[in-house]
Amino acid sequence: MSPAGGTLWLVPGTLDLGAEPVDIREVLADGVLARAARITHWVVEDARSARAFLKRAGAVHPLALPLQQLDIRELPRPRKGSGVTVPDTDWSALLRPALEGGDVGLMSEAGLPAVADPGAGLVAAAHRAGLRVQALAGPSALLLALAASGLEGQNFAFVGYLPQEAAARAARLRELETLSRRQRQTQVFIETPYRNEAMLQALLTTLAPSTRLAISWGLTLPAGSHRSDTVEGWRRWAAAEGREPAPWRALPAVFCLLG
Amino acid sequence: MSPAGGTLWLVPGTLDLGAEPVDIREVLADGVLARAARITHWVVEDARSARAFLKRAGAVHPLALPLQQLDIRELPRPRKGSGVTVPDTDWSALLRPALEGGDVGLMSEAGLPAVADPGAGLVAAAHRAGLRVQALAGPSALLLALAASGLEGQNFAFVGYLPQEAAARAARLRELETLSRRQRQTQVFIETPYRNEAMLQALLTTLAPSTRLAISWGLTLPAGSHRSDTVEGWRRWAAAEGREPAPWRALPAVFCLLG
Repeated sequence: MSPAGGTLWLVPGTLDLGAEPVDIREVLADGVLARAARITHWVVEDARSARAFLKRAGAVHPLALPLQQLDIRELPRPRKGSGVTVPDTDWSALLRPALEGGDVGLMSEAGLPAVADPGAGLVAAAHRAGLRVQALAGPSALLLALAASGLEGQNFAFVGYLPQEAAARAARLRELETLSRRQRQTQVFIETPYRNEAMLQALLTTLAPSTRLAISWGLTLPAGSHRSDTVEGWRRWAAAEGREPAPWRALPAVFCLLG
Repeated sequence: MSPAGGTLWLVPGTLDLGAEPVDIREVLADGVLARAARITHWVVEDARSARAFLKRAGAVHPLALPLQQLDIRELPRPRKGSGVTVPDTDWSALLRPALEGGDVGLMSEAGLPAVADPGAGLVAAAHRAGLRVQALAGPSALLLALAASGLEGQNFAFVGYLPQEAAARAARLRELETLSRRQRQTQVFIETPYRNEAMLQALLTTLAPSTRLAISWGLTLPAGSHRSDTVEGWRRWAAAEGREPAPWRALPAVFCLLG
């Protein structure tokens, strides 16, 4: 434990990346925006969107320094993964302001850093260095989807992305359905927006009619919505005449199933 | 789908139940407080703490009706579980204001309703009735703990409470450790505060030295903290002279392990 150690702050972002920006005060607490505005050293997934976020936060609480004077560094790539291959000296360089007793902010592209997003490697390095780690409250697409699904919320797993290849994806879906039924554990996964419709078709042809399936898209956005039904009900919905083929087109979606 | 259907709003609470209340604007977005202040019909885990929450929200945004005129009903007990045994007519009675085109708010004791908390039965009933369901962004102790753990955040499971009996608890811990190692899936679980110290002892005697263990307590509270280390490191920490025996005494804790 470093006695002079500072703090690594995990700062949540909004969920409107790539969409029309929402009012930041709709999704983030005033105290979180105030804290973000005071941080002058950042490690982020993407510097450009971090600056856009800080500009929005600064409109609510003045930034401690002008935007262009903030020290904003990007996380080492590859962005996904736990960062086990990044040498500790690289983490130390990123954490230097905290190692010297100050604050460093960690931010990802959407929601909480290090959850379904990069950043865990930096957090682990901060713990190894004896720094204080503080996570600030913010929106999580995964948990909003789970809450709104009405499925089992006392026992659930988030398993990330499914395989893209059709046979492998179907096999994985059957595995998740069986696991879900056996453990009564809701299985939560995500897909990139342009594959949402293909994922829906795979779900409807692979899962049992009685399995419950919830899809949430565009969370916290005006166009956001949740639909939760049995697979049988989803099949009727998907076959209905005039159904908008992809209500979630271009919107990030979260899928929850309970066998 | 009921054309005249209203909306069930899932309203997040603070995480300071039983502790000194924090400033509500530190953890909840202004837009969420404004929305909560407009809702006049509520279904809640506990009416007393829901009133306390609405009083705090009302100090930021005036309530649409005086507190004592709000319609606040409690979820059917037993509080835990998915509510499968509650007849649909009971859910309909609770959802009546939304079935008539208005708004109903759902709130639990802490964090997001229906996630590690009751409410999923009401959400499922709302979907069956064709109501719109909207989940508002707010703090989740589970995800704050996971983010701050530095453990695998691309694949994780929340498994609720572990068995209380020592042998059963140890067996379950070994099962979770094996599962975690095999799937590279962080396992997240909770304990009631007065058993935190016993849980720590069980973890230190049961898990492998190299397994990584993170404990977060008092999330979003001034006394809140995170500690993340290998089990070996935790053993040294626990054996250190002068160690505060239970830094989390009386504080809710979240445990994350990765084998």
